[in-house]
Amino acid sequence: MSKFQIKGVLPPMITPFKENGDVDYEAFQFNLEKWNKTSLSGFLVAGSNSETPYLNEAEKLKLIDITVQSVDRSKLVLAGTGLESTRDTIYLTNKAAHLGARAALLLTPNYYGDAMGDEAQLQYFTDVADNADIPILIYNVTKFTHINISPSVVSNLSTHPNILGMKDSSGNIAQLIKFQLSGLDPEFNLLVGTASAWNPALQIGIKASIMALANCCPQACVDVQSLFDEGRQAESLALYKRLYPVNEAVTAQFGVPGLKYACDLLGFKGGYTRKPLLNIGKEQKKIIDEILQKAQLI
Amino acid sequence: MSKFQIKGVLPPMITPFKENGDVDYEAFQFNLEKWNKTSLSGFLVAGSNSETPYLNEAEKLKLIDITVQSVDRSKLVLAGTGLESTRDTIYLTNKAAHLGARAALLLTPNYYGDAMGDEAQLQYFTDVADNADIPILIYNVTKFTHINISPSVVSNLSTHPNILGMKDSSGNIAQLIKFQLSGLDPEFNLLVGTASAWNPALQIGIKASIMALANCCPQACVDVQSLFDEGRQAESLALYKRLYPVNEAVTAQFGVPGLKYACDLLGFKGGYTRKPLLNIGKEQKKIIDEILQKAQLI
Amino acid sequence: MSKFQIKGVLPPMITPFKENGDVDYEAFQFNLEKWNKTSLSGFLVAGSNSETPYLNEAEKLKLIDITVQSVDRSKLVLAGTGLESTRDTIYLTNKAAHLGARAALLLTPNYYGDAMGDEAQLQYFTDVADNADIPILIYNVTKFTHINISPSVVSNLSTHPNILGMKDSSGNIAQLIKFQLSGLDPEFNLLVGTASAWNPALQIGIKASIMALANCCPQACVDVQSLFDEGRQAESLALYKRLYPVNEAVTAQFGVPGLKYACDLLGFKGGYTRKPLLNIGKEQKKIIDEILQKAQLI
Amino acid sequence: MSKFQIKGVLPPMITPFKENGDVDYEAFQFNLEKWNKTSLSGFLVAGSNSETPYLNEAEKLKLIDITVQSVDRSKLVLAGTGLESTRDTIYLTNKAAHLGARAALLLTPNYYGDAMGDEAQLQYFTDVADNADIPILIYNVTKFTHINISPSVVSNLSTHPNILGMKDSSGNIAQLIKFQLSGLDPEFNLLVGTASAWNPALQIGIKASIMALANCCPQACVDVQSLFDEGRQAESLALYKRLYPVNEAVTAQFGVPGLKYACDLLGFKGGYTRKPLLNIGKEQKKIIDEILQKAQLI
Repeated sequence: MSKFQIKGVLPPMITPFKENGDVDYEAFQFNLEKWNKTSLSGFLVAGSNSETPYLNEAEKLKLIDITVQSVDRSKLVLAGTGLESTRDTIYLTNKAAHLGARAALLLTPNYYGDAMGDEAQLQYFTDVADNADIPILIYNVTKFTHINISPSVVSNLSTHPNILGMKDSSGNIAQLIKFQLSGLDPEFNLLVGTASAWNPALQIGIKASIMALANCCPQACVDVQSLFDEGRQAESLALYKRLYPVNEAVTAQFGVPGLKYACDLLGFKGGYTRKPLLNIGKEQKKIIDEILQKAQLI
Repeated sequence: MSKFQIKGVLPPMITPFKENGDVDYEAFQFNLEKWNKTSLSGFLVAGSNSETPYLNEAEKLKLIDITVQSVDRSKLVLAGTGLESTRDTIYLTNKAAHLGARAALLLTPNYYGDAMGDEAQLQYFTDVADNADIPILIYNVTKFTHINISPSVVSNLSTHPNILGMKDSSGNIAQLIKFQLSGLDPEFNLLVGTASAWNPALQIGIKASIMALANCCPQACVDVQSLFDEGRQAESLALYKRLYPVNEAVTAQFGVPGLKYACDLLGFKGGYTRKPLLNIGKEQKKIIDEILQKAQLI
Repeated sequence: MSKFQIKGVLPPMITPFKENGDVDYEAFQFNLEKWNKTSLSGFLVAGSNSETPYLNEAEKLKLIDITVQSVDRSKLVLAGTGLESTRDTIYLTNKAAHLGARAALLLTPNYYGDAMGDEAQLQYFTDVADNADIPILIYNVTKFTHINISPSVVSNLSTHPNILGMKDSSGNIAQLIKFQLSGLDPEFNLLVGTASAWNPALQIGIKASIMALANCCPQACVDVQSLFDEGRQAESLALYKRLYPVNEAVTAQFGVPGLKYACDLLGFKGGYTRKPLLNIGKEQKKIIDEILQKAQLI
Repeated sequence: MSKFQIKGVLPPMITPFKENGDVDYEAFQFNLEKWNKTSLSGFLVAGSNSETPYLNEAEKLKLIDITVQSVDRSKLVLAGTGLESTRDTIYLTNKAAHLGARAALLLTPNYYGDAMGDEAQLQYFTDVADNADIPILIYNVTKFTHINISPSVVSNLSTHPNILGMKDSSGNIAQLIKFQLSGLDPEFNLLVGTASAWNPALQIGIKASIMALANCCPQACVDVQSLFDEGRQAESLALYKRLYPVNEAVTAQFGVPGLKYACDLLGFKGGYTRKPLLNIGKEQKKIIDEILQKAQLI
């Protein structure tokens, strides 16, 4: 069986909460319907931008279920099902598979960071891939895990028939090149995990991205790629540079609370954060307003 | 209501697993009974050395329950109930309280590290303390959380009537002094979280410790303090230095798998690790054997 | 007076030493003459790859003098004259100016890292620029200084009439974009400081590079840019990817000793390192041999 | 020849500058005479607190000369003569020896950090020790060098007849223990390099310290040790804790500029800093005033 190819932009969907901290499923569905009308290629449920570490199992499964039920069948539904233990990850991945998720995105286990060397990583991803009912993708996000996967481990894992690809969130083009040159299986999907490197990533041959910014500016994120694919590199680059400060604001600068506020401003329902994540303050909101205006998004 | 004072040594108990990855509750109980006969002051269930990130809720609660049922009523039973979200932490803490845990040890939430600044930490620990049925202790373990609590936050939290103390695992005496001098509530318990600083910590006035080494060498860890308390500082220091390389081996050098093997060698049941944590290899075992021999423990 | 524009590739020239540790000026001149015949745009004397921290003042000045005397007048001669103190930096910069260096590249002072914040950096570069007889470039190389200049500081300094540009050695395309978008003076030259990002840097509008790899493969480094400028992006990208592992070997993997050995293999005179830098060993040489063969350079 | 033993407190002497940036030798001599009347065991010329990276060779030698000429012959004069290259270090060390310095303190070379592994460190310190006319001490100061020497390297070097000891500035008691247990030559002097760990270091058997705080509070630093040696540990600990916030202010918090201001307040001549190091501002001065008052030093 050959691996399917992933192309285009997928948002790691935010999870709107009510003021009391409950998931606001209606707001989530509202967003889904809006995103579904854009040219996004698919959706990631329970990613880093979904406040996933704060969601319990039932909530995650309900969000996956709603997503699968709501979006066009042509759209790819990915579920973030990585947990610290191998057995819990397999269990949750297969629950997600049963609900219709097409593939699972798995964060590197990281609590015992010193013990999660190459051998432990190889074992973990192989064990899950061997036992998962859907293909898996590696999720390399050093900012959160404090672990950076090595090119040799990726190359080794890329040949596993049930390992579909990797999302690398470093935003480091040189690192993506290193992965590309490590001897990857030709069918392995290397995705860039941040809008901060989107146009440069396209230049070096990357075809898909899962990026926070696609929550609030889905069409613009898609356009960077369409323009590039049509040979209009100058326009693609210009659009990417215009979006760049917005991406900074909703990731490095203000994180998920900033992203949720930008979603509010751009017609989506950001909702509250869940504690201990603090909601964004008045002054920060003003800065985001200005950044969006400067980027001609509002 | 005044805060009770914690004195002595508590092991953050290992969780033995069977080869198939299930918790080996019999082995756990075996260890408990052995530890119970020593002069340990109490026990921490579901700490970092318990492979807690790999345990599900039911397993954690069962381990708490067994501990409360098995040990002398004079011994202090602490439960590690920190989770990423405030609501989940409160929920689990109160479940543990209901089972008889005397206090809860709460890891700083850390996935969104950039967002867990002073304000978020203050809010989190205050929210949990306000809603917990038992007192809580802060668990500052930068090695795992990549966050280091500031003296001003600790000082602020120390006056909360339901915040009993803090375990600091830095092993950094100068940092402990900084906490002591930050204006702590006089009833606040400052515990050292590693045997690597045990005798020096006693010197500066620390009275209690939760430390990995107490799993395999409980009596020796207690003796460092007894000797010190009896004014036999030279002997206390010498014993501490003798244990030091053993502690290195079962923490920094080989981690939990090394600790479990040392437990095996010293009459306890270490059991298997749970995946993705790898069991210790043959060569590493040999090194630990030698270190224990050199320390005259076997 | 408007700033001149820098375009093309400049090697941060290695300094060959004799076995006894003396500078081998003849070998240096041999290399210079060879490089001078290529399409390199200019030369950096006393950069990081020149073992500059090991050179005394007289040696640096002699190397600058030889370079100015030896190369075509159309080639740009830069001198690395940054020292920890402002006064020493001004002194050495003006000595270099007197010898004919066209501009100076200045490392951020870094010993007292905590004290070298934005204000100290602004003051330092402004003080030197105010007093230097030639234009200066900022040298941002976090790997060696453990300090990363902020976009706002660069933007501020870019408007100084005597600050010509900056070499950023991060190899991080997203960071280069951040600098580009920070409000730089339009005449300010932003150079990329490593071959690991050369083709992607061209894509985002960078025009020049100072890179270690240009010591051993000058023409190939130039070709990446020529192909790109001719609209042959696919060929430029392919050449860049072919060179990528070589660059890794002569920078991150084996450092200056590796670069010197690659120079030896490719017709230049690498010479010995100066102590405490160790010469490369036999096994490392074999790895470099293989990497160069695989890249079809030998 | 056996190694001499170092005991007591030595200040790494500040270098007062005039407003124009010249060394203020008169102020330096003023301080020397004042310190000479205390119970300090000796002096370090050209240490980290001396703004040494900003001093040229002639200035360093003049400071060494003045020190040797001015202080009691019973006091130990150490000179900081470490430079990046082995040959420069040997040269400067022997110049210092010729002027009468009793031993030299050598910073680990660190510009090419990745290349300064165990082997390079062993080679560097051995080469210098073999060729130095006076004994040398290793200076391990990770804060500035970003390199931490390993116990095995220290242990290995400790047996060299011309390597007298090491100043470890980590302030980490557990690390000092690790060095003590690494198999050091019994005559090797292990010094603690910061007042933040002074009393705890005495507890574990350390006999000497080179510490910034001794510039402004020499007698109090000496008293911590005298009280300890007289068996008055509680008083020694109390004094150490009283000084602790002052030490924080003149090191981690405000660095050398803060130390110089505290010297001014306490009867010494701090003088100006040399650029690019910024002088301390008005608000910072106020904080230091308060800290000194609280510590009952003014």
